Amino acid sequence: MTFFTQTGSFRRREDRGKFITLEGGEGVGKTTNMPFIQEYLHYHNIPVMVTREPGGTKLAEKIRDLLLDAESESISEQAELLLMFAARAQHIGNVIEPALSQGNWVLCDRFTDATYAYQGGGRNMDMGTIEWLEDLVQGPLRPDLTILLDMPVEAGMARAKKREGKVDRFESEKISFFERVRQAYLRQAERYPERIKLIKANQSLTEVQNAIANVIQPLLT
Amino acid sequence: MTFFTQTGSFRRREDRGKFITLEGGEGVGKTTNMPFIQEYLHYHNIPVMVTREPGGTKLAEKIRDLLLDAESESISEQAELLLMFAARAQHIGNVIEPALSQGNWVLCDRFTDATYAYQGGGRNMDMGTIEWLEDLVQGPLRPDLTILLDMPVEAGMARAKKREGKVDRFESEKISFFERVRQAYLRQAERYPERIKLIKANQSLTEVQNAIANVIQPLLT
Repeated sequence: MTFFTQTGSFRRREDRGKFITLEGGEGVGKTTNMPFIQEYLHYHNIPVMVTREPGGTKLAEKIRDLLLDAESESISEQAELLLMFAARAQHIGNVIEPALSQGNWVLCDRFTDATYAYQGGGRNMDMGTIEWLEDLVQGPLRPDLTILLDMPVEAGMARAKKREGKVDRFESEKISFFERVRQAYLRQAERYPERIKLIKANQSLTEVQNAIANVIQPLLT
Repeated sequence: MTFFTQTGSFRRREDRGKFITLEGGEGVGKTTNMPFIQEYLHYHNIPVMVTREPGGTKLAEKIRDLLLDAESESISEQAELLLMFAARAQHIGNVIEPALSQGNWVLCDRFTDATYAYQGGGRNMDMGTIEWLEDLVQGPLRPDLTILLDMPVEAGMARAKKREGKVDRFESEKISFFERVRQAYLRQAERYPERIKLIKANQSLTEVQNAIANVIQPLLT
């Protein structure tokens, strides 16, 4: 956790922090752009805690391991969905909410929009069930800003494949699965245009990062 | 899993099996009486699969380990509840439902009544939330018979303490917690008198086992 540094800012430490999430399918550049956002906030003297889902606490990371284990027994869709929200409840209660209420900003690599995209879109699970669980676990908590990096599935998959390491249980899904994930992300962006800012990820990195800075900038005032 | 033996019975293998659950607080004698029920069913040529909750599959047992780990970070009540139902979804889909539909009976050490008792009663969680998750994960599946072993909390705790081994995260709760667990179990029994059969556990073992045999007997016809 990085704490607020007081150089030349009038931001009050007791203000509630902002909650920013970064979303997108495979290979859209989340890993590259997380540090950029963190640096951008540091530059503006914003105390930011960087975390990820599923995960973010010791217990939630253990749940993440269960979820991503490609060699495990076949996980039922409902078990997967409930594990996601169990990890999220733990993450919110032990990490996100305390950080925000202490005035830190929270930057999270994936959050509930990913559940709508992967479980709702990818696995065709009932969106109403996801909404009910979202309300149960989050109460009124929603991100102040969601940055959605979007590019065509085939291009993203090609980029993701260049990375090293074993594929996890989600990465081993078919192209049609990721097409449904992308479409569900785009529907979320249409549904919440104020919160979710769509950025084309198949531009140059400089263009992507300028676009990211532009959507974060209004939160700074 | 024990399969049907055909000695002198006309039970058809293709009939759906019955689902029996054994419930009760700490020290009421579940561990002693599970094998008795199994033997009783074997004696009547019933093919029975014995399992437990939380657990019953490799993944669900890993979730059980997360739930019972007394040394882990503080688990939020919501995370606990969702982990319970995640394990249950996996257990039903991979074990209980396939066994029942193949004609095996299933004998399960704790099931959803325990969630009403421990999370609903013990932790004072909203019963409506538990009902919603029960419907989500189980659909119409309910036990055909639930045997509830009941005795005063202090007496049960004294018996439980005689067992060896470390106490888990639930066993380390206070007496008042277990009193709420007991009362919630009793309310479940009042609510579902046809399904849940209450047996006083502070009688002699012979009396308890006669009572168990008496409530199972009607299922055999």
